[in-house]
Amino acid sequence: MNPRILAFDVFGTVVDWHGSIAREVDAMRLGVDGGAFALAWREGYQPAMQRVRSGELGWTLIDDLHRMILDTLLQRFGIEGLDDAQKKHLNKVWHRLDPWPDSVEGLRRLKSRFMICTLSNGNIGLLANMAKHAGLPWDCILSAEVFRAYKPDPATYLGVARVFDVAPQEVMLVAAHHDDLAGARASGLRSAYVERPLEFGAARPKDVSPRPENDLHANSLVALAGMLGC
Amino acid sequence: MNPRILAFDVFGTVVDWHGSIAREVDAMRLGVDGGAFALAWREGYQPAMQRVRSGELGWTLIDDLHRMILDTLLQRFGIEGLDDAQKKHLNKVWHRLDPWPDSVEGLRRLKSRFMICTLSNGNIGLLANMAKHAGLPWDCILSAEVFRAYKPDPATYLGVARVFDVAPQEVMLVAAHHDDLAGARASGLRSAYVERPLEFGAARPKDVSPRPENDLHANSLVALAGMLGC
Repeated sequence: MNPRILAFDVFGTVVDWHGSIAREVDAMRLGVDGGAFALAWREGYQPAMQRVRSGELGWTLIDDLHRMILDTLLQRFGIEGLDDAQKKHLNKVWHRLDPWPDSVEGLRRLKSRFMICTLSNGNIGLLANMAKHAGLPWDCILSAEVFRAYKPDPATYLGVARVFDVAPQEVMLVAAHHDDLAGARASGLRSAYVERPLEFGAARPKDVSPRPENDLHANSLVALAGMLGC
Repeated sequence: MNPRILAFDVFGTVVDWHGSIAREVDAMRLGVDGGAFALAWREGYQPAMQRVRSGELGWTLIDDLHRMILDTLLQRFGIEGLDDAQKKHLNKVWHRLDPWPDSVEGLRRLKSRFMICTLSNGNIGLLANMAKHAGLPWDCILSAEVFRAYKPDPATYLGVARVFDVAPQEVMLVAAHHDDLAGARASGLRSAYVERPLEFGAARPKDVSPRPENDLHANSLVALAGMLGC
């Protein structure tokens, strides 16, 4: 049985957060290394979501978690002199991430045969602004915000199946992260791994070797489209 | 100040529910008048949502409310012999509604300058399937399902502003229904009325004369695009 719905992880899978943030921070001439700043920001991401998952924080959108992390990073990197409007603008760099070179073409082809949606921990507004910026042709934007739970909570994976009124095995998660794909499989979804060796930048290449537990393994979204007959 | 976000009512405003359902029911040769069946189905819609608003029913998606209404209609119209799969398929005719002739071109033009999203009481899956069927190029699908409240609850109108992190007056609701537009204005949104004189079929033409309280009045989405400089 083929999947009917393709749900995509976004940060790192569809868009290049590291390169995009590094470029924008470098262009601001703040006297810090943009790539190091990007990595530090992303390193704060899982711990921040964990504070929500554990109940220490009430439900909090990623935009707000990003801002909390940013405020600590500005201190840590010794960046002074940004006013609140500038900080708000910088925080929304996550809305302006650029796609990997194959993403738009791959999504367009996959969209011709499948319902393609996001399944990201990013909030809806972030994902919609990003889609507009990057030309990502989603059929539908689904987010942790819709389910009020962060991946890998089963409510997110099963939520996709529920929204589209299909069985879990009719949904395939596409992601560059094995833990996300494992969460999807635990809820009965199919899984497709996409190689993104440069997710953390050229200086820190990622092991992208295949793992047998994934249903599909592709080196780009265009390659995935080919595998799925698009 | 111009709006940044255009939020669209969908049933009747963007798609022709009456004509689409009448055609499909007539084609099923059930021995009933498709137009009358469509009108009766839609007449059950507000009372069904009212049962949710009043708390008599817990949170219930439109797909499920449509099915409850359908089951009573099948009895009332004396339609027998449909099995459950056929009833389920018929219930999803709401996912297969056709656009008004100007909708796709109008939305494409509006999309070039604005964020365009749905704000419909229809559930997310219904709206996503409909967009795929009808070629509606939404940037984002927002629904009562996201806010767990049905229009005209202020949580829906203000929810659009919150999702996009803008002030209410930066959102314009586009609808063919004055009560919906009044609800939007009461929450601080702008309002654009679209004439859909045939919403209830040619036999029951609708008064579409302008009312001064609406910010804009257009006879099609293409005309609205022109008014908004697209």
